[in-house]
Amino acid sequence: MRFDIISVLPELLESPLNHSIMKRAKDKGLLEVYLHNLRDYAPGKHRQVDDYQFGGGAGMVMKPEPISDCIEHLMAERSYDEIIYTSPDGQRLDQALCNRLSMKQNLLVLCGHYKGVDERIRQKYVTMEISIGDYVLSGGELAAAVLVDSVGRLIPGVLNDETSALFDSFQDNLLAPPVYTRPAVWEGMSVPEILLSGNDKLIDEWRHEQSLARTRERRPDIWEKYVGGD
Amino acid sequence: MRFDIISVLPELLESPLNHSIMKRAKDKGLLEVYLHNLRDYAPGKHRQVDDYQFGGGAGMVMKPEPISDCIEHLMAERSYDEIIYTSPDGQRLDQALCNRLSMKQNLLVLCGHYKGVDERIRQKYVTMEISIGDYVLSGGELAAAVLVDSVGRLIPGVLNDETSALFDSFQDNLLAPPVYTRPAVWEGMSVPEILLSGNDKLIDEWRHEQSLARTRERRPDIWEKYVGGD
Repeated sequence: MRFDIISVLPELLESPLNHSIMKRAKDKGLLEVYLHNLRDYAPGKHRQVDDYQFGGGAGMVMKPEPISDCIEHLMAERSYDEIIYTSPDGQRLDQALCNRLSMKQNLLVLCGHYKGVDERIRQKYVTMEISIGDYVLSGGELAAAVLVDSVGRLIPGVLNDETSALFDSFQDNLLAPPVYTRPAVWEGMSVPEILLSGNDKLIDEWRHEQSLARTRERRPDIWEKYVGGD
Repeated sequence: MRFDIISVLPELLESPLNHSIMKRAKDKGLLEVYLHNLRDYAPGKHRQVDDYQFGGGAGMVMKPEPISDCIEHLMAERSYDEIIYTSPDGQRLDQALCNRLSMKQNLLVLCGHYKGVDERIRQKYVTMEISIGDYVLSGGELAAAVLVDSVGRLIPGVLNDETSALFDSFQDNLLAPPVYTRPAVWEGMSVPEILLSGNDKLIDEWRHEQSLARTRERRPDIWEKYVGGD
């Protein structure tokens, strides 16, 4: 799987993409991530990528030409399954969307900055707009990093058994149960006895009950979908 | 404002915290961010921070002792408004929560890794559990970066007029309207005429209508809250 990321601040993404599971996935040849500096496609000495917005108001807008030039350059080399724009008004990223995207071959991600990109870029090129949550970031770079991480770790072979995604929150539409490790008693607090029982069936049941209880208590919205069978 | 971040992979956070608005906020003295490597608090040659989970199953759990030692060390130096654990089963981060957190002085953020931290750490220390969205990441570091960025940019003085947060998505409980910059006609697509009219009142009305339409179309959940007056 390949990600191409277009950004005015590609250096922001260096350390997140070179550590942890992303590094391992790249080392294994399962994931390629290429950063493209939008300024390389901006003309003139000042490499201007933004301009004042029509109609006035605070905040600069990313100019259409450099983005278009960069996207056309990349599209000439390969076809993309999706051209994704990271923006708070996009579709909200969730685990189901991560699963779907993990089956794609080539994804192009355009990171917004300032007030965002000229609307015509969205109309002409963007096939999917994704928001990682209902909050505003200073740029789309962290959203791109979240996307690469959450999708990349689902590519078959990236996670080993120890980090298996099967028991993660959301994979069965429930929150994960609590987890415990040694010591069995720490600061006067004991691990639930059932986890020490060695009875796999009872432990599985306990974990499922804990997942149900935690989901019902903390996330009534997810709970309703779960019991509704959506 | 000060963030202390506890992580097993602090190096992952280096580039996000040293670019863009976060760098500017630190340079202005408005924001301090300190990274603490959990391994510095783990005993023995191997600096072990994780262990097998009680009850069996794939995935390691972060041991309670090193986390406790690190938190106690930090709490001896100052008091924290919140001790935040980043986890997919936490409260979902949204702009209202970012606004509230931006008024705090000292925030301690514990990044989960592997299957997460021993539940007793959550019971003993954690005052707030935050999820940046309904998806699973390979670690809590990107969640911490998102938190620092989304909260840090709201500290008074961090954003200048050009990047003002007042017209961001969610600040008025609506998605932002489309934006345009020069050229007025690009690839046969024209900027909406009203934005060239110079009539501020009509432009404001148009933008508000666009925000309403976009919110209604893309985010019925936010729209319902907006018209319901929540």
